[in-house]
Formats: sequence, structure tokens, C-alpha cells
Amino acid sequence: MRRTRFDEWPCPIARTTDLIGDWWTPLVMREAFLGRKRFDDWVTALGIPRAVLTARLERLVQEEMLRKVAYEERPARYEYKLTEKGIAFYDVLAAMWRWGSDWQWGDGEGPLMLVDRDSGEEVVPTVVNEHTGERIDVRRLRVKTRAH
Amino acid sequence: MRRTRFDEWPCPIARTTDLIGDWWTPLVMREAFLGRKRFDDWVTALGIPRAVLTARLERLVQEEMLRKVAYEERPARYEYKLTEKGIAFYDVLAAMWRWGSDWQWGDGEGPLMLVDRDSGEEVVPTVVNEHTGERIDVRRLRVKTRAH
Repeated sequence: MRRTRFDEWPCPIARTTDLIGDWWTPLVMREAFLGRKRFDDWVTALGIPRAVLTARLERLVQEEMLRKVAYEERPARYEYKLTEKGIAFYDVLAAMWRWGSDWQWGDGEGPLMLVDRDSGEEVVPTVVNEHTGERIDVRRLRVKTRAH
Repeated sequence: MRRTRFDEWPCPIARTTDLIGDWWTPLVMREAFLGRKRFDDWVTALGIPRAVLTARLERLVQEEMLRKVAYEERPARYEYKLTEKGIAFYDVLAAMWRWGSDWQWGDGEGPLMLVDRDSGEEVVPTVVNEHTGERIDVRRLRVKTRAH
């Protein structure tokens, strides 16, 4: 069955859903952040079926989140590098990380933590309003059409 | 084909992927935040196929993100209310909103904005480290097993 597409909907949540609703895609991106660059890196790290990975990488290149770069000429071999848009996507994964850590374990705490490479301090992603630095209270939000 | 399940993986991104990778689910949650409570509210708002909505609501109840409450006895009619876990999920949608707004429109700005209900000021979701209030630099992150 053809899925309903959301990638032309006027809502940014819908457009992002269209992308990350592709099964495996957030994990393919997670692995890109962990330094995977080559097709077989993802296969080894995730156990993702090769045909699925081919489709996911193709979409991520088309979305300009990854860039496909030849690193060898004969035979032609490619690696995939995060673009600026791809790097910005980390925020979505970070919010997923936080919510998943808080809520998807019985005892209220996931087994993994993010730490700063240098200081070793825990890094705890949280979503705030950029203008105030405060947590966002969804009950106080409205959606408005931007005036242009 | 049976999809690979991620809901028992040790990574919080994987577990959250398992949930929001269900096509339509982030939009079902979005609509819950817009006040939809009854089955037909979602059908009308999203044009989601009824069988899909049934499956999505069932999963969201099972995940304890929505609570199914009878509001009428004869005939039995139900509505779905956000739980604390469901409300916390807004952060994931907010991060998707931000990234989608920034990157999924050609001119770099989505047509919609979030505003504070009372002040009318724009609310711009951003992901920071809760301990420092600073943006998260993914290049400085490491993943570590939590000591228990």
C-alpha cells in the first residue's frame, strides 16, 4: 500500500515525520554521528538489510543531509558525509534520546549517558525556548501563520 | 515483511524510533496536543485511515502516552487523554518542528510559527544541555554506560 506522504504538508512536524518515519532512518543518522561513513560500516553496526540501507542513504543524500563523496576512483567507492543540514538534525536525535531515556525504561533511567568528551561531565539534552531559555510549556502554545 | 524491532535496544534513540517510526504516529500526537480527544477528531483533522488510527491509538495507550477514558456509558464511548509521559513527548515534536522549519523549506523558514498564547511572542524550540544551557555540540559528545 502506498503510504500517505507528508513531505509537502505545511507543518514542519509533518515534513520531519515523512523523513524519520522511514524505518531505520534515525538509526542510520545516529550511526553517521558515531562516525560511520561507508556502506559496510552501517551494515556491520546496525545489521540493517542492504537494500533498506541503499534506499535510506539515497533518501538522505537527496534530502541533502548526507553528501556522497568518492574516496577511491578504480573501482569507484563512496563514503557519506554529514552536511550542515544533517548535523543540525542531531537536535531531533538528542530530543529522542532524552525522552527515550526518561520514559522507555522501567526504572526511569536508560543505561547510557552522553558525556562531554573532554570534561567527562554528563550532557543532558533538553528543549527550551531559545528566546527565554525556559522549558516549553505546550499548554501555553499557539500555532500562527508567519506574516511575510 | 516483519520489521526489525528496536524497542528492546539499549539506545534511547532506537526505542523512540520504534515508536515514532510507526507511520502517522507523530502526527497523531501532534493532534493530541492540539486538543483532539476522540477517534473522529483525528480522522477529520488528519484524514488518517481508520484502521491505521485504531492501531496507532492502541499502541499509544499501551505505551502509556495516552489514556483511554470512557466519557459515555451507553453506548460506551471513549476519549484519549495525554498522560505525563505523552506530554513529555512534546519535546521530541518541538525538536522536529524546529529542524523542519529551518531545513525543510526552500527559503529557510517554514510558514508557521509557535507563539505564546498570552504574550504573542514567538517561541523557538532549541535543544540545549540542561546543565549549562548551551547548544549541544555533537562533535564533543561521547556515549558512556551509566554506572549503577
